[in-house]
Amino acid sequence: MTEDRRLRVALLGAGSVGSQVAALLLEHSAELADRAGAQLELVGIAVRDLDAPRDTDLPRELLTTDAEPLIVGSDIVIELMGGIEPARTALLQDLNAGADVVTGNKALLATHGPELFEAADQVGASVHYEAAVAGAIPIVRPLRDSLAGDRVRRILAIVNGTTNYILDRMDGEGADYADVLADAQRLGYAEADPTADVEGFDAAQKAAILASLAFHTTVPLEAVHREGISTIDAQMMDAARAAGYVVKLLAVCERLDDEGGEAISVRVHPALVRRDHPLASVHGANNAVFVQAEAAGDLMFYGAGAGGIQTASAVLGDVVSAARRHIAGGVGVGESTRANLPIAPIGRAVTRYQITLEVDDRPGVLATIAGILADGRVSIATVEQTIIERQSIIDADADAAAAAQTTGAEGRARLVIGTHKAQEQDLAETVDRLGSSDVVERVVSVLRVEGD
Amino acid sequence: MTEDRRLRVALLGAGSVGSQVAALLLEHSAELADRAGAQLELVGIAVRDLDAPRDTDLPRELLTTDAEPLIVGSDIVIELMGGIEPARTALLQDLNAGADVVTGNKALLATHGPELFEAADQVGASVHYEAAVAGAIPIVRPLRDSLAGDRVRRILAIVNGTTNYILDRMDGEGADYADVLADAQRLGYAEADPTADVEGFDAAQKAAILASLAFHTTVPLEAVHREGISTIDAQMMDAARAAGYVVKLLAVCERLDDEGGEAISVRVHPALVRRDHPLASVHGANNAVFVQAEAAGDLMFYGAGAGGIQTASAVLGDVVSAARRHIAGGVGVGESTRANLPIAPIGRAVTRYQITLEVDDRPGVLATIAGILADGRVSIATVEQTIIERQSIIDADADAAAAAQTTGAEGRARLVIGTHKAQEQDLAETVDRLGSSDVVERVVSVLRVEGD
Repeated sequence: MTEDRRLRVALLGAGSVGSQVAALLLEHSAELADRAGAQLELVGIAVRDLDAPRDTDLPRELLTTDAEPLIVGSDIVIELMGGIEPARTALLQDLNAGADVVTGNKALLATHGPELFEAADQVGASVHYEAAVAGAIPIVRPLRDSLAGDRVRRILAIVNGTTNYILDRMDGEGADYADVLADAQRLGYAEADPTADVEGFDAAQKAAILASLAFHTTVPLEAVHREGISTIDAQMMDAARAAGYVVKLLAVCERLDDEGGEAISVRVHPALVRRDHPLASVHGANNAVFVQAEAAGDLMFYGAGAGGIQTASAVLGDVVSAARRHIAGGVGVGESTRANLPIAPIGRAVTRYQITLEVDDRPGVLATIAGILADGRVSIATVEQTIIERQSIIDADADAAAAAQTTGAEGRARLVIGTHKAQEQDLAETVDRLGSSDVVERVVSVLRVEGD
Repeated sequence: MTEDRRLRVALLGAGSVGSQVAALLLEHSAELADRAGAQLELVGIAVRDLDAPRDTDLPRELLTTDAEPLIVGSDIVIELMGGIEPARTALLQDLNAGADVVTGNKALLATHGPELFEAADQVGASVHYEAAVAGAIPIVRPLRDSLAGDRVRRILAIVNGTTNYILDRMDGEGADYADVLADAQRLGYAEADPTADVEGFDAAQKAAILASLAFHTTVPLEAVHREGISTIDAQMMDAARAAGYVVKLLAVCERLDDEGGEAISVRVHPALVRRDHPLASVHGANNAVFVQAEAAGDLMFYGAGAGGIQTASAVLGDVVSAARRHIAGGVGVGESTRANLPIAPIGRAVTRYQITLEVDDRPGVLATIAGILADGRVSIATVEQTIIERQSIIDADADAAAAAQTTGAEGRARLVIGTHKAQEQDLAETVDRLGSSDVVERVVSVLRVEGD
């Protein structure tokens, strides 16, 4: 069978992932032919600049700046250009020409996924995108196929290596955010402009893709609530450690089923995770996807979330799948979006919180605060109070000390309040009221607690 | 699409997994129809005894003791009877009748897999078996599809929940094997006859399936080297803990590439795993599959390895995949066994070892032992010696004490030798020579060290 079948494969983009894909396609061609059931002939590589430096040596004659002739007549097109355009137009053109498409373009999928899937459906082609989420970790097939007969309740995922690297080093070294970020940039773990990573934009794209798969629902990127890690400081990490937690940037996708009816919540934010939770031991730039399903129970998928060669593995797995479909015949299996659950606003999310306050240290303060929480329908699980010495207040913050003197307070204390499950909207309103209360000097931090 | 398609699904077997599969097929039929693209109509459940007690309430009218009419005319047959016959004959009959087959029968796959895959190929049908390895954990699709463009170097897997439960409790409580086994039997974690689990037979079947998938090679069950955990005692667990290890029963599938040429080694045995290895934190009856691939790097898949409802999740995922294939058309994708690598005898395996000896405590003993190891081409990495007091020898073992007196030894010592990588055959011969040496009282244990 192998000998008499030959599939034409075009590659768009030869960056860190693309150049590795090309190298592996060329080096392992006999093995790939065995697995795919056909020779995979790399017919060309579209690049912007023929002379740009690349991670691997690629045959010069395969490079071209003109993608058009590659797309026409290819059986499989691999898109690793990134960004929305010209990737979107190229892929729609590929699909309309009947090619199967393999892409690692999370930005495109998170914003124009439905358009691509619709185009594929029209011609019976298929769109493969294992590389778009969590790099080398197989997560798209497990969610789409292995768990197709189950009901996913919740996904907690570490899907951004840069932020996990930063938080892990802050946790391990007690270092400051800015110092670790600078070092991460120097070492190549973070970009010169780190916004996409540290503000959660990258993780939000992946959350949209994961939630779409898990809940058989189209989740537009705008529906993903997003908070980054730039507000996390060494003191918050210390406090988390002391309380038995570690801070992780999580993509949370969960099914809600309250009086508002069935819906899903999709959000990206830093969260406290118990030290003995499997996600707590995901170190460095690694990724992990923790899935809770009704029947299957708890599952975790762990591995490298980025890297040219690692991500190339995911791309080539998709290429083999696309090739097998071509050989087997039949139409591609489309995306399952029939459930189309409504996406709840962040206010409807329910979780536990840890609220850290600086308060006046005088009689009746705790009663006042407990009253504000009770009024806001936020139930207290734990309270821990630490006295902040008057002297250290003066050293640290002369204005606050002066303010404390005018209010007649005897000093300041730090209160760490762990709540029971509360609705985000109730919590937010309660924190506002705490912030404007006379007895509260400062709301130091509010962190969600996930995975309990 | 959903409305006008209807697929007939037959279920063979209604034990702990089968009854959950039937219940989920009936309860979630609308959701499953959305995902599969067709109504999945459960046409009947073949059982041995109509009145046997079951985990879930099943409609009496679906039960039958006659599988024959169910098989004829079904689109998808789910086989959860277990054992070789009549499962084998039934599945061959199903496949010949053009049905897609979903099975969780690891014993059948490990012994007659190629026969089933060949039968499926003949008619373009497919065999799905995600439930056969590691219960709910998606591992078949990741190995067959996601990593199809990569090259797996090694799999280290905890695939038997019973033995992991026993070893985990021995490790945590310092308890003895026999006591924990008895307790595991009382709690339902181990069977009345625990042989299949504790002697590694169950794990060996799963190792054969994993290695077949990972290396695109038919691995017959007989080729899997197998050792169980019944020789592991509290003292070995203590020594492992002291040295920073935990003992796990591992299925090891690895690619060898030495002067003997490319081959694979497939084996099941207890092994020392470093405490900071991801596999060390797999507790209780959970399973995990740790995969090292050339491009993807290290991956781990974690979850429940058994349980009726958990395994039912894997079965239903396969049912949806089979249904989608039916709807999409085209033939099933067969198994990839083109690599057909030779399977190396256990003697060719290469790993590190920890050898524990009781030796005479007199000058020159260590030199003698080091000489025996060097002659055997086993290189020493670490040695730790503990003196065993004369008094305690007399208490514990009067014969040995008497023997020590006649040899002029001043007492006994325990030597724990960590080796560098050595070939199994060299190691075995060296251990034999150590055992028959004058200075060695007793070879206490020899354990492989994996995952370094």
